[in-house]
Amino acid sequence: MKLSRLFTKTSKSTVGESKAKSHELLVQAGYINQEMAGAYSLLPLGDRVLKKIENIIREEMDAIDSQEIIMPAIHPQSNWEKTGRWDSVDILFKVPSRWGDTKYALAPTHEEIVFPLVKRFLFSYKDLPISVYQIQNKFRDEKRAKSGIIRGREFGMKDMYSFHETKEDLSEYYERAKEAYLKVFKRCKIDAKVTIASGGDFTKKHSHEFMAISEAGEDIIIACDSCTYAENTEVSELKNGSACPECGKKMREAKAIEIGNIFDLGDKFGKDFQMEYNDREGGKRIPFSGCYGIGTTRLIGTIVEISNDEKGIIWPEEVSPFDVHLIALNSDKEKVKDFAEKTYNQLSSANISVLYDDREDVGGGFKFKDADLIGITRQVIVSEKLLEKNMVEHKKRGEEEAKIEPIEELVKKIK
Amino acid sequence: MKLSRLFTKTSKSTVGESKAKSHELLVQAGYINQEMAGAYSLLPLGDRVLKKIENIIREEMDAIDSQEIIMPAIHPQSNWEKTGRWDSVDILFKVPSRWGDTKYALAPTHEEIVFPLVKRFLFSYKDLPISVYQIQNKFRDEKRAKSGIIRGREFGMKDMYSFHETKEDLSEYYERAKEAYLKVFKRCKIDAKVTIASGGDFTKKHSHEFMAISEAGEDIIIACDSCTYAENTEVSELKNGSACPECGKKMREAKAIEIGNIFDLGDKFGKDFQMEYNDREGGKRIPFSGCYGIGTTRLIGTIVEISNDEKGIIWPEEVSPFDVHLIALNSDKEKVKDFAEKTYNQLSSANISVLYDDREDVGGGFKFKDADLIGITRQVIVSEKLLEKNMVEHKKRGEEEAKIEPIEELVKKIK
Repeated sequence: MKLSRLFTKTSKSTVGESKAKSHELLVQAGYINQEMAGAYSLLPLGDRVLKKIENIIREEMDAIDSQEIIMPAIHPQSNWEKTGRWDSVDILFKVPSRWGDTKYALAPTHEEIVFPLVKRFLFSYKDLPISVYQIQNKFRDEKRAKSGIIRGREFGMKDMYSFHETKEDLSEYYERAKEAYLKVFKRCKIDAKVTIASGGDFTKKHSHEFMAISEAGEDIIIACDSCTYAENTEVSELKNGSACPECGKKMREAKAIEIGNIFDLGDKFGKDFQMEYNDREGGKRIPFSGCYGIGTTRLIGTIVEISNDEKGIIWPEEVSPFDVHLIALNSDKEKVKDFAEKTYNQLSSANISVLYDDREDVGGGFKFKDADLIGITRQVIVSEKLLEKNMVEHKKRGEEEAKIEPIEELVKKIK
Repeated sequence: MKLSRLFTKTSKSTVGESKAKSHELLVQAGYINQEMAGAYSLLPLGDRVLKKIENIIREEMDAIDSQEIIMPAIHPQSNWEKTGRWDSVDILFKVPSRWGDTKYALAPTHEEIVFPLVKRFLFSYKDLPISVYQIQNKFRDEKRAKSGIIRGREFGMKDMYSFHETKEDLSEYYERAKEAYLKVFKRCKIDAKVTIASGGDFTKKHSHEFMAISEAGEDIIIACDSCTYAENTEVSELKNGSACPECGKKMREAKAIEIGNIFDLGDKFGKDFQMEYNDREGGKRIPFSGCYGIGTTRLIGTIVEISNDEKGIIWPEEVSPFDVHLIALNSDKEKVKDFAEKTYNQLSSANISVLYDDREDVGGGFKFKDADLIGITRQVIVSEKLLEKNMVEHKKRGEEEAKIEPIEELVKKIK
């Protein structure tokens, strides 16, 4: 894509209430726009990052045999009454209709839909296990929403639900999901810690939270330096410097952002919706279930909190909005422009996505500043000098070292 | 994907209130589930069809230089008051919050967000034209919602908004959008007619509706047999048998489903949001705007209304949930199973998506019935007999003719 065509512009000021560093950078670089406290638009660059994150999640959920679906965001009140959550979930938006007294729930989670839905297809133990997930916006009536995209009233989420014949089968799947989650975070270059947590609103059962250590976090955890073990300081008896129960290494206290959570739901919702199936013994049973969430838009904010410097964002390769930020210096000169266009086409036709700064009325200094702020993983520079050698300059964002090399070399490296 | 793993099942009965043929087929084949009147889940097969439709739309909108973004579904009340639509749009869901007296609008359309958003980046005539679109769920507080997925309280939509320096530039873009829309529908194998319409709630200006002729339609149009020209009978003076004003051919009355619409908004919303930019003469101006919608989930229902027979759905190739439905006959026999698996792997590794009916406890008759109901474009059959010849049988859904050919032939044909 040519930068001259991108309708967003970088800016020095930040619109919006949040003081979070990620919010500042994402607004200034043109990734997001705050429409009101807790509600954001994702602009073309932000939309591209979100789609990359969603695809990573899709790949990892498909790999643990989950099936993608999409459920509605408005739910009948009666389903929420069946689970007892119409009155107990305080962040629930309740939407009145002009037609009658019943209201709709605007969904913060989807047990109330997915259990009756899966029930329709669950007849026998032979149908189990079943795992389904969706990627969709969720809604929470939050009092304050001031951490930028990290805590929204509306936010993107992947939620997955699994159904099992036995507790053991659920436990096994729960562990597979945990591993899949760690893979997702690793691909986003987040060193996630896993805390045992109480379930809050949703369950009294066993649950785990995935935490990214960051000063912007709202939780305080005590985490191991060398493995993923952590505990929330609210419930932990471990102290700064304690030995990790898992591996014996040192634990440290740190602020952290919750980026995912998984819950053992037992048979709670199965019972609420009388989700009976024919078991092996000729009787009727209720399945055991788990639910598994990852905040997708929150992940964008978290990655930026973790990966930035004084100049701007530094995107990890797998979630960078483009593979390459191409900068043409002296692009007002015809031959440089031709060389830049050629480079742009060569990269594009090798299936490498490029944001090409083709602006003719902007100096090199500004182009570099914008590229550093936007934070695309690789920066490629073409100039009059380089053109003479038929070479391009190639540099990774956040690294000092630059390489002068032929474009073919670069293509090979990225592929 | 192996059919034995798919959590949905085909069924003979239809759950839900709608009498629409598309609703019946989509429910029976396991594409959708009704969660309440007007709110549907898309199951794995339905989700795949939706994604294909969305990608067709994406390609055609990108081709007319529009940029994808995502805006929130909850909007501040104040923005809707600025446009005067808080009280005038009767289908608007108004969501109260626990925190204060202000409400949120649950969006049926996005002018109230996109105008202030684009304003942030619009400084000069040099920034124009701008076109942005999103693909997202919309909400309407409908009294009745009984046409299945064709009229939902929550439904998928692509909405696009464009901003221009002059009326002429808007007109030109409006025509490009119209052509792009016709391309989308053509790729979905819908012979869309274009009616001139009044804008309804949204605008008093010029607008066009895209109509698919179908008995399930709620509108009656008088349409040309041989071009896209049509008029709505509510406003038309043309009669059955009249000559088409465009091409002189015969016009016929027919029921039709509205699948898209485009509006010339003039400067209405630009004025509402004081969207001023610096013009060529050193003065201030408001841009001219258009808005352009396609119902994505409605398109699923429309395609099925148009393309089915007594056995089930017949998907057009570009929106078929899988490229191939692979049926193994006598798959309880080890060598047939091996041959089927080999065929499955061969197709998959050629990047051809396959739904493989690997069920061992289901007879051939049932497998054919399910394949016809599900309606994937190509059916490929392997059996003991075919295995001896190292051939597969290949048939297009809805066509009689079947071909016996080597798998390599088939791969070539599909690619």
